[in-house]
Amino acid sequence: MTLRTRLTEILDIEHPIISAPMAFAAGGRLAAAVSAAGGLGLIGGGYGDVEWLARQFAEAGNRKVGCGFITWSLAKQPEMLDLVLKHAPAAMMLSFGAPLPFARAIKQAGIKLLCQVQCMEHAREAVDAGAEIIIAQGGEAGGHGQNRGTLTLVPEIADYLAKAAPSTVLAAAGGIADGRGLAAALMLGADGALIGSRFWASSEAQVSPSFQAKAVAASGDATIRTRVVDIARNLAWPAPFTARVMKNRFTEDWHGRESALAKPDIVEREMQRYVSAMQSGDADNTGVWFGEAAGLIKDIRPAGDLLHEIVRDAERLLRNGARNIVS
Amino acid sequence: MTLRTRLTEILDIEHPIISAPMAFAAGGRLAAAVSAAGGLGLIGGGYGDVEWLARQFAEAGNRKVGCGFITWSLAKQPEMLDLVLKHAPAAMMLSFGAPLPFARAIKQAGIKLLCQVQCMEHAREAVDAGAEIIIAQGGEAGGHGQNRGTLTLVPEIADYLAKAAPSTVLAAAGGIADGRGLAAALMLGADGALIGSRFWASSEAQVSPSFQAKAVAASGDATIRTRVVDIARNLAWPAPFTARVMKNRFTEDWHGRESALAKPDIVEREMQRYVSAMQSGDADNTGVWFGEAAGLIKDIRPAGDLLHEIVRDAERLLRNGARNIVS
Repeated sequence: MTLRTRLTEILDIEHPIISAPMAFAAGGRLAAAVSAAGGLGLIGGGYGDVEWLARQFAEAGNRKVGCGFITWSLAKQPEMLDLVLKHAPAAMMLSFGAPLPFARAIKQAGIKLLCQVQCMEHAREAVDAGAEIIIAQGGEAGGHGQNRGTLTLVPEIADYLAKAAPSTVLAAAGGIADGRGLAAALMLGADGALIGSRFWASSEAQVSPSFQAKAVAASGDATIRTRVVDIARNLAWPAPFTARVMKNRFTEDWHGRESALAKPDIVEREMQRYVSAMQSGDADNTGVWFGEAAGLIKDIRPAGDLLHEIVRDAERLLRNGARNIVS
Repeated sequence: MTLRTRLTEILDIEHPIISAPMAFAAGGRLAAAVSAAGGLGLIGGGYGDVEWLARQFAEAGNRKVGCGFITWSLAKQPEMLDLVLKHAPAAMMLSFGAPLPFARAIKQAGIKLLCQVQCMEHAREAVDAGAEIIIAQGGEAGGHGQNRGTLTLVPEIADYLAKAAPSTVLAAAGGIADGRGLAAALMLGADGALIGSRFWASSEAQVSPSFQAKAVAASGDATIRTRVVDIARNLAWPAPFTARVMKNRFTEDWHGRESALAKPDIVEREMQRYVSAMQSGDADNTGVWFGEAAGLIKDIRPAGDLLHEIVRDAERLLRNGARNIVS
């Protein structure tokens, strides 16, 4: 039993679920596990570490996996695209920047182009770039994004696509971690979901167990959208994008004090603090990258189990959805 | 044909839809129209204008309507509660402040208590106060609220209630303006929806047609969460709450410059600007109070028509929800 949608058809997958290409966390093991379970796993292209990426594709083995890039970062080293295309990814996702400069090469390679967007202007850019699949990402999402809520962004983009590009497939992202979220996404007009935090909190993610334990314990109220984790890493994220991370000592120290953090001597010290806490699994002094869906995450399990449970629960809800209609 | 849920049962209404008690906009006419169409209409208690409220109950006539208060404002003039209870409202809603001090009087009067919450801490306070219905309001909503997205807040509160207070009924609010949003809310575990912006943009709302025209034209990207509309009105909203309004010249002038706005001479001038633009229907220089759902609003129509369309579309989606499940 499974859900067949335009997303499963266009990607030739069994279940309408894509795992997010989370920088650092989404390596080849996670992507392969998601694809093996019948979804599409995406390796996180991150900020363009060629050797790391090659290792991840190697770890994914013969599994059909895709890859996602941070578009503004890719624009700084466009040669990365060819390197990744040599791995014959099942799909390429572009987020956070103008997709047009890279769209042609991806499509000419016969690879499906997914564009993640956070507002209507970016949705139009994605259509203009010829994206086969648009991911409408709400601000509930962990990691980078903007502020629109998934609940309004998805139907508004669905309406736009119905007029402007009816064959473009739509997936919802941001805050989806269980069958309820997937079923809701389908009701809103999406053809499936891209899921981040729930897979970040899986056995195969490249995430410190001490960070994952925080997500299990946390409510969705425990996160914040901020720039401080980017300032501390000297990453020049463009203005519209902020990052949702867990509130911790690091964000308490610096959120609202961004200019102080950006001073050269301070940022150097705080970068060391960030990096060393990241490496040692110290969740108080670095960026812990999960979204509001943390409130729905109760355990760490293999990604394939999680995916099958999400689909099973969504199917049950969809089957029972008409139960309350009375004549 | 209709949707029967725990919300329709506990309120003895036909459709699982409540109209939000929007200050100033939700008068007796709108509340009565929503109740007449089979939902529950709520009059906006606002900041406690006794004569205005009496007029609204009079305009609602014999229709069964409820009333909603801004709880921190009610706490400053608690005698308002008795005045409203004399009108025998069908239900009382409390939002934005501690509900406990008012819960007993409402429940002793035999009136259903609805508590609107924006985070888990407030959900627990609502349960402790004995709320029969909890409204989980996401930050997509127009007007006051907090930042959590509806898509994650609703299922997290549903899980909490399932353990802590299983007989408490749950409605979703924030970003719901059509049948897709209602159907999604039900999938997320809600028993119905509280709808604001879509009814703000109805024939019966007490809203300037020039403001409503802005909502019809706007994308959901056209709004912002800010404090400047409260600072300019000298309203002492407690820290966690901000207001979502349309981006306009007023918010561009002051958002990010809150301390400058708060200076006595400036705030006096800007209050005049705000109030006179509100009265004259000048959408550039006042608060225009709609949420992200604006991107789904394409016309101004009678509230009853809107309500019936929302229910009809949700029913169709729920009926077809299992269509994509294949064995």
